[in-house]
Amino acid sequence: MPITQSLHAVPLQVLQDKATLLRIDSVLATTEAGSGHPTSCASAADIVSVLFFSVMRFDPRNPRQSDSDVFVLSKGHAAPLLYAAWAEAGAFPREHLLTLRKIDSDLEGHPTPRLPFVDVATGSLGQGLPAGVGMAFEAKQLRHSDQRIYVLLGDGESAEGSVWEAAQWAAFHRLDNLCATIDINRLGQSQPTMLEHHLEVYQRRWEAFGWQALPVDGHDIPALLAAYARAKETRDRPTVVLARTFKGKGLGASIENAEHWHGRALDRDTANQVVSELRKQLTGGENHWEPNLPPASPASGIAAPQPAATSAKPPYQIGGKEVATRKGFGDGLAALAPADPRVVVLDGDVENSTYTEDFQKAAPYRFLEGYIAEQNMVGMAMGLAARGHVPFAATFACFLTRAYDFIRMSAISNLNIKFVGTHAGVSIGEDGPSQMGLEDLAMMCAEPNFTVLYPSDATSAWRATWLLAAHSGPSYLRAGRPASPILYGPDEPFAIGKCKVLRRSGSDRALVVAAGVTVPEALRAHEALQQHGISIRVIDLFSVQPVDREELIGSAREAGRVVVTVEDHYEHGGIGDIVLAALAGERIRAFKLAVREIPRSGKPAELLDRFGIDSKRIVETVRSALG
Amino acid sequence: MPITQSLHAVPLQVLQDKATLLRIDSVLATTEAGSGHPTSCASAADIVSVLFFSVMRFDPRNPRQSDSDVFVLSKGHAAPLLYAAWAEAGAFPREHLLTLRKIDSDLEGHPTPRLPFVDVATGSLGQGLPAGVGMAFEAKQLRHSDQRIYVLLGDGESAEGSVWEAAQWAAFHRLDNLCATIDINRLGQSQPTMLEHHLEVYQRRWEAFGWQALPVDGHDIPALLAAYARAKETRDRPTVVLARTFKGKGLGASIENAEHWHGRALDRDTANQVVSELRKQLTGGENHWEPNLPPASPASGIAAPQPAATSAKPPYQIGGKEVATRKGFGDGLAALAPADPRVVVLDGDVENSTYTEDFQKAAPYRFLEGYIAEQNMVGMAMGLAARGHVPFAATFACFLTRAYDFIRMSAISNLNIKFVGTHAGVSIGEDGPSQMGLEDLAMMCAEPNFTVLYPSDATSAWRATWLLAAHSGPSYLRAGRPASPILYGPDEPFAIGKCKVLRRSGSDRALVVAAGVTVPEALRAHEALQQHGISIRVIDLFSVQPVDREELIGSAREAGRVVVTVEDHYEHGGIGDIVLAALAGERIRAFKLAVREIPRSGKPAELLDRFGIDSKRIVETVRSALG
Repeated sequence: MPITQSLHAVPLQVLQDKATLLRIDSVLATTEAGSGHPTSCASAADIVSVLFFSVMRFDPRNPRQSDSDVFVLSKGHAAPLLYAAWAEAGAFPREHLLTLRKIDSDLEGHPTPRLPFVDVATGSLGQGLPAGVGMAFEAKQLRHSDQRIYVLLGDGESAEGSVWEAAQWAAFHRLDNLCATIDINRLGQSQPTMLEHHLEVYQRRWEAFGWQALPVDGHDIPALLAAYARAKETRDRPTVVLARTFKGKGLGASIENAEHWHGRALDRDTANQVVSELRKQLTGGENHWEPNLPPASPASGIAAPQPAATSAKPPYQIGGKEVATRKGFGDGLAALAPADPRVVVLDGDVENSTYTEDFQKAAPYRFLEGYIAEQNMVGMAMGLAARGHVPFAATFACFLTRAYDFIRMSAISNLNIKFVGTHAGVSIGEDGPSQMGLEDLAMMCAEPNFTVLYPSDATSAWRATWLLAAHSGPSYLRAGRPASPILYGPDEPFAIGKCKVLRRSGSDRALVVAAGVTVPEALRAHEALQQHGISIRVIDLFSVQPVDREELIGSAREAGRVVVTVEDHYEHGGIGDIVLAALAGERIRAFKLAVREIPRSGKPAELLDRFGIDSKRIVETVRSALG
Repeated sequence: MPITQSLHAVPLQVLQDKATLLRIDSVLATTEAGSGHPTSCASAADIVSVLFFSVMRFDPRNPRQSDSDVFVLSKGHAAPLLYAAWAEAGAFPREHLLTLRKIDSDLEGHPTPRLPFVDVATGSLGQGLPAGVGMAFEAKQLRHSDQRIYVLLGDGESAEGSVWEAAQWAAFHRLDNLCATIDINRLGQSQPTMLEHHLEVYQRRWEAFGWQALPVDGHDIPALLAAYARAKETRDRPTVVLARTFKGKGLGASIENAEHWHGRALDRDTANQVVSELRKQLTGGENHWEPNLPPASPASGIAAPQPAATSAKPPYQIGGKEVATRKGFGDGLAALAPADPRVVVLDGDVENSTYTEDFQKAAPYRFLEGYIAEQNMVGMAMGLAARGHVPFAATFACFLTRAYDFIRMSAISNLNIKFVGTHAGVSIGEDGPSQMGLEDLAMMCAEPNFTVLYPSDATSAWRATWLLAAHSGPSYLRAGRPASPILYGPDEPFAIGKCKVLRRSGSDRALVVAAGVTVPEALRAHEALQQHGISIRVIDLFSVQPVDREELIGSAREAGRVVVTVEDHYEHGGIGDIVLAALAGERIRAFKLAVREIPRSGKPAELLDRFGIDSKRIVETVRSALG
């Protein structure tokens, strides 16, 4: 049986047998695990067989090769199908499939990038397409590669708004190297989907969003091949294959297209019976397939040395004009544009507020306007990071809450994304609580692998931007709106994990830990307390996570184990908690100043006063603590 | 000039003059404030004039009257326009408009329910329509009222996926009492929108999503009137009025339809000039309007006594069959169905996992299937809560991150929503990290007005459900997946703000604070340590926020000020931080056991062990702390 490598040239019987094998392997693995989603695998088995064994050009032994086509399983609960396909393709031995969901196996319940063939973790629905859009943009616009991106979604999943955010963006940018497939198996977890098998409604929606939409019988292999061939030939717009399928297809009459079979493994007897029936359908074609090696191409990722974090300097002078930390970030980012070609920037239509517009001017082709769709913005950043770029994704800190599920999944994927939230805290003033980021530190610091920096002036913001670009791993930079004094000179060194001790004496009686906009308040409090003969130590925390535990412990001990934290953030989950946790073993007395109620509009100074985080309150707290 | 009250019967000149007045007031207020979005008000002034002074039936002195039509300003940055309309309608004196954005004024930068005519805070885009869908469902399906819901969106805003989540749900439920308007003024904050003035694309998209879509010149008052009349007559589907407008309309040639005028107040000279030109257009019609009082109707909200939290009992017995806390919640919720008619339940297609299906069976008409679109699910809950219901919105804890921006805005609105997150922590087992809620406490506890309960067995979960139904205010209930022992009898009392001391002796040498799935671990540790002659105090935290500070302080003091916290949550923002904060003044030594890295698939017990939160680790930590 001759095997050739171009689309359509693989004999149908090979694809049919491979699909049957994928069903068999999905059933066996989930039954062995005692849990999982075999019926969600079965509906998509023909689609995946066609994609892997005819349509896609890839090398299973080197899936991240930069010209390999990419497959994203957005419906991550069909993980056993994904694993079966890669095993069939030769990425690893088939017998490993039976380690599914075990603690010492990387074949987890939902896919994660612990596996070399997974770019982004999935399992929270509606994230694969945004990530795929980021990858398609990267391939087409940044690398001019003919790499194609295939994303498989579930039908219930397409109720997620993020899918439509991604759809509109991909069409707007005419990403014809992107091909989505929706496995329209009619059944969600608890009941039928809203649209069931109404493919004509799907078609109208996707066409209205600017896509080529191809309805097809998702178990008809020639029809699938024809659809993917048409997608490949189509220019100027992405394609979605709308595949009408049956959940549990091929697993027997009592399971196929039946409700209440979502997320249930078959018991051993049923599984044996089903597998035995499936095996009868095999014709030997499953043994015939070889990888369709792409031409040699450079390794994936952007081959560029990262700049040394000291090769440039922030332009601000101590005592000079006041500059906002968001502007320090924007300036630092613009300076990175020529220095680090890995850096790409995304914004959600607020680049004239976050100052990413400075980068946009410097490197327009590496700037992605996300418009007002923060989930897709972060999803695209996931795709860009997975392909070796260093995306900075910026918006108001409060609006990053919109994308928390994506941020959480970025953490699971350990992606090298730099999130930037500006307009933190009540100090933004008159716009009011809806625009104030007051839970962003809680949200970001919860992720255990996140680096979190919170600069207090434009110089440290500039430095933080460069530090994060050079650092590998998910990160968050918190910036403020108001112009604030320059506290550090251009040669001041900063490091992840290190704080700055701004005031220190041998007679300090309390330690005040501030960050961002409260640092100048703490310095004012220091001055006021000096006039009462009280010395305090003042720390600018700068690195919230990891935190400078050593300096905090040393300073707390030297300052009478009396600690005051002050922050423009809600009470729980911010720098107060981080500092308390670092000092948990120290038998300290601590006082946390933070925003303790829902704030309101007003002038920044009025709000710092009203919500108890200004110098006056620091002074009162220290004096009361010292009795 | 005769004023009649039905649609169309108000003279056009009145509506034109009112629109001009709204523009004048929007300019004056923002110029006085020195900030704000006058151009975003000006584009929608004609729409708002038509809605308020001809289309809507409402009583400005009693806007929450249950049959009053509702107006939701989803583009919350046009707040000055909203305030001007209500002032024109007689809700408050016009001169108050000049207090815009001042700290002692409720006329905040973006609308909040501090104002009697605002149901839900807006200012984070894409939330008004989901809330409006909840209100429209409430009026039509729960009250059979002919109340109509009008939502005004921006065009940049309609890039938010949540808008499309709401659109599909409203069409699926044929909410013909819902009418959206999109103010298509072509310009976002930083640049033109993706679709600019391509109304035909908007039309295709909304029609594909099942809406009647009516393109119209948004400055043509007769055309607007005709569109709203058609909307009112249309049955079986919602209507969207696609209004082609110009940003800054009427504010002069240099401002109208010009870029870089987003979010900028006019300086005084420009404002005076603009206002003087606008005043010339007034014909006297602005003085002619009276409220079109609706017929007398009962006050808004569901008139039903809330059940005493002790009027029923959980059915579980100590030592009986193990039951998951999610099942305790589901049972408690089902028992609430007949007891409290205010309660409505929303789920995101996982009701057979969260056990809200038990409520669904008991009260199908008060169950809203949200499908896989968590943002709209929470948005609808916002609308339902604003109209006096007590919505429980449930899904996996991890997927509530999807709606964090909505949860945050619920906090700002102080809405009476009960969020429920099941499948918390690594103890869910094999499904892996994407399905594990590990940052949910950080997210929820950050909101200062949230009540957060975390029951450890089915009895306390049942009680927590009833406590939260009776409690007024936004709340979160955290529940787990695995079956776990019944620790409390049916008569055990529980209270918000109170923990449970499970083990106490006069010789306790350490305090162990646990919650949820770690409580049985702590009890096992207690037993193991007893065998080494070490007594520990064991607290089941139960009420995470507010926390039982008094008992924690007393117990910490009696247990040698050595405190160990143990939780199935990431390290930062969970119960460890809450306990440390409560004990901040106590000079304790504390040890926090929590999940400190991204977890993986495995069996629950293996994962508790691997990530260091099982009884063995508690024993080790206590012994090491005591030297």
